[in-house]
Amino acid sequence: MSRVFSTSLRCRLPFLLFLFQTSLLLVFLLFVTYDEHTDAAAQPSHVDHAANQLYAIFSLFQDIQLMLLVGLGLLLAFMKGYGFSAVANNFLLANFSTQWALVIQGFVHHSQNGKIRLGLYNILTAEFAAVTVLISAGAILGRTSSIQLLLMSLCEIPLYVACEWVTVSYLQAVDVGGTITLHVFACYFGLGASIALYRPGLRLGHPKETPSYISDLLSLVGTVFLWVFWPSFVAVLVQPGDAQHRAVLHTWITLSASAVISFATSSLLEKEGKLNVAHLQNATLAGGVAIGAVANMAITPAGAFILGIISSLVCILGFKYMTPFLATKVRIQDQCGIHNLHGLPGLIGAVGGIIAILLVPDEAYGHQLYQVFPPRAPPLRNITMEATSVGENLARSASQQALFQAAGLGVSFLMSLLGGFLTGLLLKLPFLAQPPDHLCFDDSLYFQIQEPMKALSLDQESGDFRLPLKLHISSPCDGKAEMKQEN
Amino acid sequence: MSRVFSTSLRCRLPFLLFLFQTSLLLVFLLFVTYDEHTDAAAQPSHVDHAANQLYAIFSLFQDIQLMLLVGLGLLLAFMKGYGFSAVANNFLLANFSTQWALVIQGFVHHSQNGKIRLGLYNILTAEFAAVTVLISAGAILGRTSSIQLLLMSLCEIPLYVACEWVTVSYLQAVDVGGTITLHVFACYFGLGASIALYRPGLRLGHPKETPSYISDLLSLVGTVFLWVFWPSFVAVLVQPGDAQHRAVLHTWITLSASAVISFATSSLLEKEGKLNVAHLQNATLAGGVAIGAVANMAITPAGAFILGIISSLVCILGFKYMTPFLATKVRIQDQCGIHNLHGLPGLIGAVGGIIAILLVPDEAYGHQLYQVFPPRAPPLRNITMEATSVGENLARSASQQALFQAAGLGVSFLMSLLGGFLTGLLLKLPFLAQPPDHLCFDDSLYFQIQEPMKALSLDQESGDFRLPLKLHISSPCDGKAEMKQEN
Amino acid sequence: MSRVFSTSLRCRLPFLLFLFQTSLLLVFLLFVTYDEHTDAAAQPSHVDHAANQLYAIFSLFQDIQLMLLVGLGLLLAFMKGYGFSAVANNFLLANFSTQWALVIQGFVHHSQNGKIRLGLYNILTAEFAAVTVLISAGAILGRTSSIQLLLMSLCEIPLYVACEWVTVSYLQAVDVGGTITLHVFACYFGLGASIALYRPGLRLGHPKETPSYISDLLSLVGTVFLWVFWPSFVAVLVQPGDAQHRAVLHTWITLSASAVISFATSSLLEKEGKLNVAHLQNATLAGGVAIGAVANMAITPAGAFILGIISSLVCILGFKYMTPFLATKVRIQDQCGIHNLHGLPGLIGAVGGIIAILLVPDEAYGHQLYQVFPPRAPPLRNITMEATSVGENLARSASQQALFQAAGLGVSFLMSLLGGFLTGLLLKLPFLAQPPDHLCFDDSLYFQIQEPMKALSLDQESGDFRLPLKLHISSPCDGKAEMKQEN
Repeated sequence: MSRVFSTSLRCRLPFLLFLFQTSLLLVFLLFVTYDEHTDAAAQPSHVDHAANQLYAIFSLFQDIQLMLLVGLGLLLAFMKGYGFSAVANNFLLANFSTQWALVIQGFVHHSQNGKIRLGLYNILTAEFAAVTVLISAGAILGRTSSIQLLLMSLCEIPLYVACEWVTVSYLQAVDVGGTITLHVFACYFGLGASIALYRPGLRLGHPKETPSYISDLLSLVGTVFLWVFWPSFVAVLVQPGDAQHRAVLHTWITLSASAVISFATSSLLEKEGKLNVAHLQNATLAGGVAIGAVANMAITPAGAFILGIISSLVCILGFKYMTPFLATKVRIQDQCGIHNLHGLPGLIGAVGGIIAILLVPDEAYGHQLYQVFPPRAPPLRNITMEATSVGENLARSASQQALFQAAGLGVSFLMSLLGGFLTGLLLKLPFLAQPPDHLCFDDSLYFQIQEPMKALSLDQESGDFRLPLKLHISSPCDGKAEMKQEN
Repeated sequence: MSRVFSTSLRCRLPFLLFLFQTSLLLVFLLFVTYDEHTDAAAQPSHVDHAANQLYAIFSLFQDIQLMLLVGLGLLLAFMKGYGFSAVANNFLLANFSTQWALVIQGFVHHSQNGKIRLGLYNILTAEFAAVTVLISAGAILGRTSSIQLLLMSLCEIPLYVACEWVTVSYLQAVDVGGTITLHVFACYFGLGASIALYRPGLRLGHPKETPSYISDLLSLVGTVFLWVFWPSFVAVLVQPGDAQHRAVLHTWITLSASAVISFATSSLLEKEGKLNVAHLQNATLAGGVAIGAVANMAITPAGAFILGIISSLVCILGFKYMTPFLATKVRIQDQCGIHNLHGLPGLIGAVGGIIAILLVPDEAYGHQLYQVFPPRAPPLRNITMEATSVGENLARSASQQALFQAAGLGVSFLMSLLGGFLTGLLLKLPFLAQPPDHLCFDDSLYFQIQEPMKALSLDQESGDFRLPLKLHISSPCDGKAEMKQEN
Repeated sequence: MSRVFSTSLRCRLPFLLFLFQTSLLLVFLLFVTYDEHTDAAAQPSHVDHAANQLYAIFSLFQDIQLMLLVGLGLLLAFMKGYGFSAVANNFLLANFSTQWALVIQGFVHHSQNGKIRLGLYNILTAEFAAVTVLISAGAILGRTSSIQLLLMSLCEIPLYVACEWVTVSYLQAVDVGGTITLHVFACYFGLGASIALYRPGLRLGHPKETPSYISDLLSLVGTVFLWVFWPSFVAVLVQPGDAQHRAVLHTWITLSASAVISFATSSLLEKEGKLNVAHLQNATLAGGVAIGAVANMAITPAGAFILGIISSLVCILGFKYMTPFLATKVRIQDQCGIHNLHGLPGLIGAVGGIIAILLVPDEAYGHQLYQVFPPRAPPLRNITMEATSVGENLARSASQQALFQAAGLGVSFLMSLLGGFLTGLLLKLPFLAQPPDHLCFDDSLYFQIQEPMKALSLDQESGDFRLPLKLHISSPCDGKAEMKQEN
């Protein structure tokens, strides 16, 4: 496709990024100021420094940054010749999206007297927004230029903020770990975009789409990073105290069950019982996606266990049967299988939340019931309870709350799928440097590859997996070789 | 050996894991509930959320998870074609063992009214138990299937809990960093199993047992991860305040001395003074093993320094002279050299603890003496001091305490060696998918290896290191090639 | 050069390291004791354990260790056959330098009654000193033996302590994140040494100086580690509360702007707009270097943004135009481009500090003005304010303070350049195992490379990049092959 258009990033990427940074700098100059935790002048003379918000979130914030930039970067780098793109584009996209979300969320949520008030908390919530873009990008990884991904971010972030407002602020669905607002939204936005960007030429796969031994190993290490710090991600926005402790505990249990069940299921379904590393790279995390909707609820440790078992089972079944089906019959290509890791477990978690709201008795929460479910609090119950957003203290019953959870899920699903599809159409504009089919999954299109490899590729005649064999030994190079040769 | 038996994991691994998870789920459903830090209903109406136990351990807990899953996983991945097995089996084994320990320790230590009360603290102590399995597995790495390792875990965890009860609860030996109860126990359990699993066919080494350049480098990075977070591991269970601070300080000093001495010793002992990366991967951590027994004692910074120097010296001497001796003369194969990293430094640390107890005057502890040595407290000394376990307030003298330390060491040594040997005999059962000699150290036996490599291996005729040379360039592949050819 | 001298580390490295550790152990035995946070006997009977200094710094300390040992180690490992040297020498050098700084800083800053009082805080500040050595080493990476690097550390650490004393204690320049005292100092010390160690034979580059695909990818991951934890590095020594929060916020903003601008600039300047990974590995961090001098000042979020943009722009321009100019015309070889990452952004940050002091009105600091600028406090203003070092409470005006900042920058620049040059001359002593030109950038000179590779190299006849091509596929090996053949 689109071979007549240039794939050069020159001018395009610099233009987009410089324009973005200049605009953002203008916004910062005109509208951004410190919040009460970062403004020196706002501190009383005998301030308690230890109470600064920094100390409640900084350590978890660092964990989450490590997840997104190292963990997810490595996880995405599973293809033999697409490691630079995976790690570097993820890095760029995370920063671009977080900055963009800082501004959008700033005007929507943190504005006071026309000024955005800024502290680390803003960056944290902006990173949550950025995560949606990073997940969505997984569906179209390798088939899109960085320019397309950045454009997607420009569209997705405002929609995420809008959708989160409807779901959490307006409908008052509870979702501390972002199962509905983040994972489900990101997944169906990505799939929507993927539908629009369908490439028949890649229907039967692509020779560069395979991992090398070492890239697959690094990707597995990326998974482990994500697995280790996932509790921080789920718990960071939970109320402090027992609720946050429960969130950490549940997340660990569900992840651990997912890990064990992933090995079992992969071995069961694959030829000769040999483990499929791609299954392990994804399904071990599935429980972490599902738990977000119920992390602070009193679902009991066994509840978290069940969620982990089901999520990873469904995730691997998705990889084995649904992804090929979607790709071949429904024309939805899903490069990293985000539907298996974020879509299906997200739906499971959302449904789990509804069940938990209906089944767990109010007594299980004691004095904490209205902390966990603010919309269930009676109006003006307690003068000291601060109003955190619109529509609180609605005195909802459990079944009413369950209904609003379902509504939130529906809104998130529909808005993201439609928004993603429209964004995907936009990404088909011809001047966005998208790679032609035969140069997909190939770092050398957008990155300088060092001399010895270039030298190598000029003399090679390969692209065939049997001959000459030496080429297939070292993974990143043969990708290069093929590509050059095809030119 | 055992060529007549299948090496397929199919059915076996899924059966074992599904059975395990189902049983565990049943236990969770019937017996597991929240503890006072995670139970919402147990919180008083004006609870101080900042006092929740979560905040005292979460950050250290994450450090330790990173050590075990990323650090140790990479460290074990030093062989050229055994990276998937190293990282993934370590991941599986850690989760399996922690879950198993959660239940065993739950019934023994955290049971109340027939219910196991669960918080993050339980997971933390269960991970300590799991570490013993991960260490022991190092002795038989590459020669065992994941099924064998899981079976070992089933045996080792209960024995660890029993041994720890005898050593710490009954004998009241002090061992905050697990030198005696964890490192010594894990080492001799692993060696015991290794004796039973001795393979004469591997006496002269194995062609796939070597690292590749990149696997060796990643393994070194794994060591650095372990080195960085080791202070968290040693200090996490120490009393807060000066004692925990001392543990961190001592651990850093001893690790730093170990690091420097490792370079010196390796260069001194090796041909042309060229550093041996395997020495650096292990001996730089040796001091961390030894310090556990004395981390909170007032051994002075110089004491920690000495411990680090001796431990890494002995560790490298062990690699150079003792491991080959054990393997060839005593028929104890020790794949990762756990005797050098955990056994010998563990013994040194345990003896160091005895010396410290005898030499450091009581005055060095001031008001903290009975915090550091609970069994030395006089009976009923202080009504406010909580009884932490059986047999406290024994008014022991320093030399009595020293005697009980020695007894604890002896118990740990004997129980683990015997238990490990018996477990090893069990692991010889013929249906556990153990690899035949020529398929040891080979990922492709249990993992799907991607297409290009398979294609490659079909055309190769190698297994010999001289011919054809191109095969030896990229490490993970030639392992594959050899293996296929031998089939 | 120096081909007649042995390059063997044997005896030399062990001798130096054992001598160093023995001397240090003597110092520890005679002069080192616990500080008030680690000494059990110094604790009052009802001490508040939570107030122990450990809890204010431990988590940040771990972040910084991860940066230095994993992040920087991987970043330096970008060359195809120099990964062991990069990671291992960085590890050794960090420990050696921190230990050495512990003693020097101990006698200068933490001595009481002739005893050095030791806690984690000392190790933290000693690691800051060690960072200067690690940065300086970047200028001469691959052209020096570990013995030369250790000798450099012996010279650089005392000079750093002296220079920091002049700049911070005597001139009372403020520099919370070490822009002037650490980055500028380290850069010009390294360049000074590089001038003295100029090698005409490497003027036109070296065949082994190139990255392989995988080493370049790992190096990029190292950058991401540094990027993630950089806020911890800048903020750890800042006053707690709003000032520390500001430091974290500013650092994140500046790093994020640097990241985005790096992609834009690299694409703009390079052929076909293809991104240069080396640019991304460095320029994404440039803002973090610059922000150190102003991190706690009220520069507004926009100010941090501007600093990030300028720093990364200048950094990439430096890589593109200045490094080649320096190498070919001025005879300053700068292997890792430390002048671009630490020198130029350091100067920008120092100038930014002066501008901020002159432009930001005192009111922006409210009650915190004298916390941020201690030398601006009036004499004896407040009896409760503790005197932290010589020369405080000087009642300086803003412009006076600006002048002293400039003086501090000048001192740091001159002392480091001169000191570095003299140290470089010392490193030319003939018995320091420096590699001959053709064995630069080659792990196999100082590390044992495993058997299969050795076997390989014996049969090869290469060293030429065109023939035989298979050799160039896997990067670490061909380096080896060439080296052996040349011997």
